[in-house]
Amino acid sequence: MKRFSAFAFALMMIVSPLPLFADDGMWTFDNPPRKQWKERYNFEPSDAWLEHVRLASVLVEGSSGSFVSSSGLLMTNHHVASGQLQKLSTSERNLRRDGFYAATQPEELKCPDLEVNVLVSYEDVTARVQGAAKTTASDKEANEARNAQRATIEKESTDKTGLRSEVVALYRGGEYWLYRYKKYNDVRLVFAPEEQTAFFGGDYDNFTYPRYCLDVTFLRVYENGQPLKTQNYLKWSAQGPADGEFVLAIGNPGSTNRLLTLAQVQYQRDVGNPLQMQLWSSRREALLRYGATGPEAARRALNTVRSLSNSIKRLVGQQDGLNNQRMMAKKEQDEKALRAAVSSRPEFQQAYGSAWDEIANAYKELPTYAKRIAFSTISYSRLGQIGSTLVRYSEEVVKSNDARYEEFRDSKLESLKFSLFSPAPIYADAEEAILGAWLAEAQQTLGADDPFIRAALQDSTPSALAKSVISGTRLNDVAVRRALFEGGAEAIKKSDDPLIALARRIEPIVRELRAWNEEKIQSVETAAGQKIAAARFAVLGRNVYPDATASLRISYGRVLGYEEDTTLVPYKTTYSGLYDRAISFDEKPPFDLTARWRDGKAKLDLATPMNFAYTADTIGGNSGSPVINRNAEVVGLNFDSNIQKLPNRYWYVDETEGGRALAVHSSAIIEALRKLYGAEKLAAEITGR
Amino acid sequence: MKRFSAFAFALMMIVSPLPLFADDGMWTFDNPPRKQWKERYNFEPSDAWLEHVRLASVLVEGSSGSFVSSSGLLMTNHHVASGQLQKLSTSERNLRRDGFYAATQPEELKCPDLEVNVLVSYEDVTARVQGAAKTTASDKEANEARNAQRATIEKESTDKTGLRSEVVALYRGGEYWLYRYKKYNDVRLVFAPEEQTAFFGGDYDNFTYPRYCLDVTFLRVYENGQPLKTQNYLKWSAQGPADGEFVLAIGNPGSTNRLLTLAQVQYQRDVGNPLQMQLWSSRREALLRYGATGPEAARRALNTVRSLSNSIKRLVGQQDGLNNQRMMAKKEQDEKALRAAVSSRPEFQQAYGSAWDEIANAYKELPTYAKRIAFSTISYSRLGQIGSTLVRYSEEVVKSNDARYEEFRDSKLESLKFSLFSPAPIYADAEEAILGAWLAEAQQTLGADDPFIRAALQDSTPSALAKSVISGTRLNDVAVRRALFEGGAEAIKKSDDPLIALARRIEPIVRELRAWNEEKIQSVETAAGQKIAAARFAVLGRNVYPDATASLRISYGRVLGYEEDTTLVPYKTTYSGLYDRAISFDEKPPFDLTARWRDGKAKLDLATPMNFAYTADTIGGNSGSPVINRNAEVVGLNFDSNIQKLPNRYWYVDETEGGRALAVHSSAIIEALRKLYGAEKLAAEITGR
Repeated sequence: MKRFSAFAFALMMIVSPLPLFADDGMWTFDNPPRKQWKERYNFEPSDAWLEHVRLASVLVEGSSGSFVSSSGLLMTNHHVASGQLQKLSTSERNLRRDGFYAATQPEELKCPDLEVNVLVSYEDVTARVQGAAKTTASDKEANEARNAQRATIEKESTDKTGLRSEVVALYRGGEYWLYRYKKYNDVRLVFAPEEQTAFFGGDYDNFTYPRYCLDVTFLRVYENGQPLKTQNYLKWSAQGPADGEFVLAIGNPGSTNRLLTLAQVQYQRDVGNPLQMQLWSSRREALLRYGATGPEAARRALNTVRSLSNSIKRLVGQQDGLNNQRMMAKKEQDEKALRAAVSSRPEFQQAYGSAWDEIANAYKELPTYAKRIAFSTISYSRLGQIGSTLVRYSEEVVKSNDARYEEFRDSKLESLKFSLFSPAPIYADAEEAILGAWLAEAQQTLGADDPFIRAALQDSTPSALAKSVISGTRLNDVAVRRALFEGGAEAIKKSDDPLIALARRIEPIVRELRAWNEEKIQSVETAAGQKIAAARFAVLGRNVYPDATASLRISYGRVLGYEEDTTLVPYKTTYSGLYDRAISFDEKPPFDLTARWRDGKAKLDLATPMNFAYTADTIGGNSGSPVINRNAEVVGLNFDSNIQKLPNRYWYVDETEGGRALAVHSSAIIEALRKLYGAEKLAAEITGR
Repeated sequence: MKRFSAFAFALMMIVSPLPLFADDGMWTFDNPPRKQWKERYNFEPSDAWLEHVRLASVLVEGSSGSFVSSSGLLMTNHHVASGQLQKLSTSERNLRRDGFYAATQPEELKCPDLEVNVLVSYEDVTARVQGAAKTTASDKEANEARNAQRATIEKESTDKTGLRSEVVALYRGGEYWLYRYKKYNDVRLVFAPEEQTAFFGGDYDNFTYPRYCLDVTFLRVYENGQPLKTQNYLKWSAQGPADGEFVLAIGNPGSTNRLLTLAQVQYQRDVGNPLQMQLWSSRREALLRYGATGPEAARRALNTVRSLSNSIKRLVGQQDGLNNQRMMAKKEQDEKALRAAVSSRPEFQQAYGSAWDEIANAYKELPTYAKRIAFSTISYSRLGQIGSTLVRYSEEVVKSNDARYEEFRDSKLESLKFSLFSPAPIYADAEEAILGAWLAEAQQTLGADDPFIRAALQDSTPSALAKSVISGTRLNDVAVRRALFEGGAEAIKKSDDPLIALARRIEPIVRELRAWNEEKIQSVETAAGQKIAAARFAVLGRNVYPDATASLRISYGRVLGYEEDTTLVPYKTTYSGLYDRAISFDEKPPFDLTARWRDGKAKLDLATPMNFAYTADTIGGNSGSPVINRNAEVVGLNFDSNIQKLPNRYWYVDETEGGRALAVHSSAIIEALRKLYGAEKLAAEITGR
């Protein structure tokens, strides 16, 4: 990302050298990087240390959080909790915009459909899953056998323990682990700042640094109607991290593609990412058009627009990495080296050598199917999603557990119902706008003769169909959903709900495309991925980490500034900088301050650190991760990455590239709670003082 | 300079569109861009307005400044005056580091060798200069004839008016103007902040923005021992500029290369700039080695190291522009379009058509000579420069005025002597280090058999020769210089001063290379440049501006932030940001604060604007330019450009590229004078309140 490749020698004398480490890896708790920790940072945690921080960490809203008091106080990002803040808001009471603080426990607000999961145990089931597939089976058969085995293991575990149980595929199928989660559904809102304070600088500053965001929300987990009593919580660091300090982040990174083959990465660059960009851009455009119809519409659209903007900006950064010839050359070189090592040993070559070409061959067909797979759905409308889920569930639930689609297995049904029967409001005008625009974009992309388009539209137009199904459906009534869910295939078949009818019409096409993808792509990827993973273990040993899979990981690195465009970016920012940036724009949105912050300036110590940058290996899903020091004390709250870091989906962006994870500084949180929010009691609960 | 060319469409919806103007041009006062001003900004200044701001502007230290009170108070940058601050400093009293304020006029310190020039009149002498060359003459003869005519005109004018008179070649010889300057030599230091305050962020932040520098110094011009009384001074704007406000900058931009042909620009990219980089890098390296020998050596080396770092960073930015294929393609396209317009009219083709090829042909030989020309000199050592000047002067002064090298013509002699006989200290240890390193680099580059190397070193080594000539020379005694200057060729011939001997030995080689360059390159460039200029006038009309030539110009634009790497950069910064940046680095140099600023934080209104960015077309030499509003009030003090702007040596970097000039905000100056420096009296003189 440096501007000057030529002539860089001339600048080197200005720049002081730093010791360089590649602090890469989102490590599983069964295989932490003890060697690197010891060698680089003289850090040798006990098993108890690791267990403690694991049990203090949670999966929440597909992202991360941590317990920070013995009374179930949970810290995550405002942007992780913002969906709940939205659901708790009405047109009269905008908690998301205005913030919230419950000075006493009775004032805490119950989130309508928030689930918190704690990884309480894990178990290696690789042999059982891999052994389920006969060696003579086709890729498709082997895949089905493994999936069936995974479902069986999950069900056994759920039945036995009552815990949410999930078999996670690591190393692209190189390992399988049974993860068991303790689940909490009674989660209440304790504190949130105003969104403008949490998201200062808006989409412009998103993925940038220096940064000035107080992106924090505190929730409280209840058990049996009482605040959860736990000793597995993280203590608070009063002073936060020093420049260069060793820190760790624990969380649930969603997805990385580092173990993909070159052919897969090239597909992403040339087909997958451009298609994704089209999907997100057209959806955002539709929402912006809807939001422009009035202030209430704007409020309703805001969350998804923001999320899409965020996704688009991230995708741009990732694509920028793929277009970086130097990085791509390194990927190519790494793959060549691994393949050379494999081919140098006949037994390796025999076992793994064909994997790369198998994937490359499978991918040859993918570009023609990719658009159909992407557009043949109505699930970006919430009601469309409910309709399709009900139709699909009715067909799946009658199958044996291990023959079902993964998301309809017994182990998933409770969460499925929790989401399906959520009382959160659904806005018909927004639904109609979203569904109509989606169908129009699909029609334009796939053509009028495409099977999905014909089935969905019949003789109607996108906008007319959207209008008729949304105005006619009764699926926004939770009782109606529940009746259809419980009524099974018969109820679905008989339903004259227009959205159910639409979902029924497209279902065969969705299933056909899914089957094609599973057979032609995923089965091959899994089979070949398993070989490549085994090859990597054989060649590189076990000191490697798997791709991110939305399951719990531990990352590490240093708090560290960087060089950008011939100058230095500091390791931290301060409250002074927040006011500088706001006033420098004459407080023009999104650089405006809330009244609390504008009027409260004199109450704050402006030298208080606000955000900081660090080198740990994180990605989307790490939002809300606690950043801790070697004493397992919270020094910060991860909330973003800078744009230089985005290509780390495909490879670790090392610290010399300027890639950094970003965190809210622990001091900033306490200073604001005490001085601006009158939340002395909460600050005391957090700090123990 | 944007990171993302692909996918940029996706971001466009986030970014609000701005009306775009190319506010380019460093315009001469005889041809201001009245049309653009009126159309874009509804600005129609009177002739009196233009004369007033011209007479309030000065040329100082090769840069710019302006009168800001009726008592001769002159404002420029700290970095423009820093050479004088250095010369006024001793190892006991470091004015440059610690700053200075004269609360009363008697305390003002006289600068040892500072000259201030005001452009009091100008006159078109194009016909006379161009007419001096016979149409049958060779390029070399024509060049000599024009130069002789220029010298004659200058001498006539000096004799007649007593004013410093200079014939300036504009439009690469398309026009010649006689500029007459009123000169002031009695200039005294009134106020300077600490250098750390003026140059906060050091080399790292140089050429970057957002920025937090109070880069200002106030001097006072005296005439006949009394403060100069003048009505030609700029009034002060209390509030400074608003976002988007129309502003103008007046100053002496040094050099641009926009009218160069594609062949010339490609030469810069491929040969000229890399060679320049070598020269500056090796000089800086030598000074850093010297500076590392002790704190006093470091202090002595600092000014030149900083200036070289600055030059290197600038060159890197310029070269980055030349390596920008899109920009280079535009240059190519512009040249093609002009040549096509020329060749479409037979009379144009006949008169101008050959010019581009003439330059391209001449340049074919240049790469082989360029290294010799660059390295065959000893003038980067101050004593070497004095020695060479004395030797060269003795050979030139005996010639008729118009046959001399330009810098030895009568009109230049007073300034030459002022510099040559300056009592400013020269440090022998630094001189030896610089000269030795220079000769070593030259030897390595040119080879031991090169004529310059043989003449300079004879049988010695670079370091031994440097040691012997610097330890043996008496040229650091002003009286010795004066005697040699006045003794003429005979005194030079007889001198046994080892530096004079060295200068004598290399002089024939320097002259031979200069003659080659003048005949083979400069003559051709001038002749062809004149044709191209005429072709441009013929095709484009007179609403064009010449390349910068270190003479007075007026530029204009808007105060405006910009977009960089997906976020926005504000149009201004504040004192809050200074403290943010300092504390964010834990005040690690060069981001430290002086005690005055650290301890004085509470005295300041931290919301005071500090620096701002604007779109006017400026370049090195514009340092110290007043930035004024349409009422001719000072709203800022130009001090730098951001790095995006550096390619504007070769073409105007329009506002969409993010190129910006940078200025100190008028409010920042007054706030600091009043609240931190106890300089209420000075603030009152400036603001009239």
